[in-house]
Amino acid sequence: MTQFMDVHHGWKDITAEQLQQAHDADQAIEKEEGVHFERAWADPESGTVYCLSEAPSPEAVQRIHERTGHRADEIHPVPLSIW
Amino acid sequence: MTQFMDVHHGWKDITAEQLQQAHDADQAIEKEEGVHFERAWADPESGTVYCLSEAPSPEAVQRIHERTGHRADEIHPVPLSIW
Repeated sequence: MTQFMDVHHGWKDITAEQLQQAHDADQAIEKEEGVHFERAWADPESGTVYCLSEAPSPEAVQRIHERTGHRADEIHPVPLSIW
Repeated sequence: MTQFMDVHHGWKDITAEQLQQAHDADQAIEKEEGVHFERAWADPESGTVYCLSEAPSPEAVQRIHERTGHRADEIHPVPLSIW
């Protein structure tokens, strides 16, 4: 399992409710691909959303995001992380 | 105080030690600008580093990063965040 940071563009004016709904939709089916979405952040002004996940592959992350209707524009493995 | 996600490019082949050193250098002086760097993630393959911080402004985040020798390429406020 690797950590991934994925980035979505085009979410200008996203609200807290929309971010929560998207995250809930992903979490509802994430286990089917062995993915766990840990956190998400959004910048409504630039329309950028970041999701941090743990997953077996970037393809697994993308499959979940595609099924819930919000394909990621970038998915980067982030094997290094610190608190 | 707002949360910010900043992104650095050009860190290809960054090691865990280098990420830790950069993060430690930022944290050593962060209080001078009222910034707190919470987490950092890195993808050595694409050379991308993400830092999550809490700060009074993006300029404050950048001033710390500049003083420690690693200017951020992007700094996005992420006022929305969920676990």
